[in-house]
Amino acid sequence: MTLPSRVTLVEVGPRDGLQNRPEQIPLAARLRLLDDLAAAGLTVIETGSFVNPQWVPQMADSEAVFRQVRRAPGVRYTALTPNLKGFERAMAVAADEIAIMTAASESFSQKNTNCSIEQSLERLAPVAAAASETGVPLRGYISCALGCPYEGEVDPHAVHALTRALFDMGCYEVSIGDTIGTGTAGSMARLLDLILSEFPAHKLAVHCHDTYGQALANILVALQRGIATVDASVAGLGGCPYAAGAAGNVATEDVVYMLHGMGIETGINLPRLVDAARHVCAALDIPCASHVANALKA
Amino acid sequence: MTLPSRVTLVEVGPRDGLQNRPEQIPLAARLRLLDDLAAAGLTVIETGSFVNPQWVPQMADSEAVFRQVRRAPGVRYTALTPNLKGFERAMAVAADEIAIMTAASESFSQKNTNCSIEQSLERLAPVAAAASETGVPLRGYISCALGCPYEGEVDPHAVHALTRALFDMGCYEVSIGDTIGTGTAGSMARLLDLILSEFPAHKLAVHCHDTYGQALANILVALQRGIATVDASVAGLGGCPYAAGAAGNVATEDVVYMLHGMGIETGINLPRLVDAARHVCAALDIPCASHVANALKA
Repeated sequence: MTLPSRVTLVEVGPRDGLQNRPEQIPLAARLRLLDDLAAAGLTVIETGSFVNPQWVPQMADSEAVFRQVRRAPGVRYTALTPNLKGFERAMAVAADEIAIMTAASESFSQKNTNCSIEQSLERLAPVAAAASETGVPLRGYISCALGCPYEGEVDPHAVHALTRALFDMGCYEVSIGDTIGTGTAGSMARLLDLILSEFPAHKLAVHCHDTYGQALANILVALQRGIATVDASVAGLGGCPYAAGAAGNVATEDVVYMLHGMGIETGINLPRLVDAARHVCAALDIPCASHVANALKA
Repeated sequence: MTLPSRVTLVEVGPRDGLQNRPEQIPLAARLRLLDDLAAAGLTVIETGSFVNPQWVPQMADSEAVFRQVRRAPGVRYTALTPNLKGFERAMAVAADEIAIMTAASESFSQKNTNCSIEQSLERLAPVAAAASETGVPLRGYISCALGCPYEGEVDPHAVHALTRALFDMGCYEVSIGDTIGTGTAGSMARLLDLILSEFPAHKLAVHCHDTYGQALANILVALQRGIATVDASVAGLGGCPYAAGAAGNVATEDVVYMLHGMGIETGINLPRLVDAARHVCAALDIPCASHVANALKA
């Protein structure tokens, strides 16, 4: 059990978080959030996605966000791109890094992207090839890695195979996503042990949701296996803790609090991060889903 | 790192939980909760406290609760007693087990019990002696073990010394309490490693609050050190997640979900436990602070 001495937080709030809010987010609020996050010390910020605005209207102005955001030195502003058209849009606004996403569950893949897992990889292959030609770093996401809303448990071997497929396509890092938050310290350990039997920890990240309150324990399991990249969302953006069916990305503040308590460096200024959380929640008039931000406010 | 194969949950909701609610709890609701918890498989239930009702009016009818509760076979109904008078009241209603509490922080001890830590041990000594004479099991609580609202960090050596003092007084088990929830996987590991250098894991329990979202990660750290007794509160009773200053016991449902996911037996029926959480929250008209109960409701 060797804990990493330093962890990189991949801040997904401005994309994964805001995309899953019901309301349309004003451009100014998105830009302010990005500035606040960079000022708090985040160095990788998922900034927008280039998907069909008919399906994800919240991300419709991602071009404007990328064009207008003040690029802080040392910060990577990344974009999710589901296809070649999205990739070209992302390149046109100089995204620093590209992410592609697939799911470990056939039912989820069918219902969300109207194709099989195999077909999703075929669709993503041209994006990966274009990224390789362009030289832009490519990150892979696997959703539903620890559970599927339609199928329940997910076979760790399927996730392992998908991880390999994403590395084969040229991803420098694969983020293992517990999209519905049903994973536990047990299922996370089993899955990671399998994947780590083939791939080194420094090429993996975890992406945990706190729907069942398990996110930090699951992240701890990953850290104990040497994984040093953790996805998180400021203020827990992406789920509403007060609504039925609440799904929520783990709050960046809560992860940072744990990491600092463990003596692990992040480069993040927690009070400034809490300020960023308060600003965005005030701008959107939503409650904050971060335990730490709420506790420190008290 | 040897995980326990079975964990005992000490359910503190009916005492620690309800005591910290602002409202007066109807006797019928307390009795119903106790029945529901026993039916869900809890085997140790902190049922009431025998303190001065002037200070803790929520627990004023603890005699009635102990007299009227249907004692389920195999379940220990326990009581917190701060002094000899409380002990005698608990014995008069045949409490199965007695708990005594002290704090690891001088400031907290002074502000909450108007005496030093040393004086609190002197006050508790007659209770411990009486428990020994009577043959009733005695449990010790240490509050503020990982942080104090007045002093901040707490010296692990002070907690270690206090643990020894409680064992010396005859406690069969000491519960290490992160009363304000500021502990992390880092501080919990350091504290437990120190205490475990002298005392075996089977004599220790942890009592975590989720104020900063750290409770399950901290409990995981304890499990990884062989600790197999965990305090928790159904529905996270004891804190209000929607209020500023929210402090909250970790929800029993969330702990059980993690344990079952890790293949650790608890003897608890999670759906019935979730039902118990819903009943008590409906009876008190309060929101439920358990992630699992809320997620399963969706």
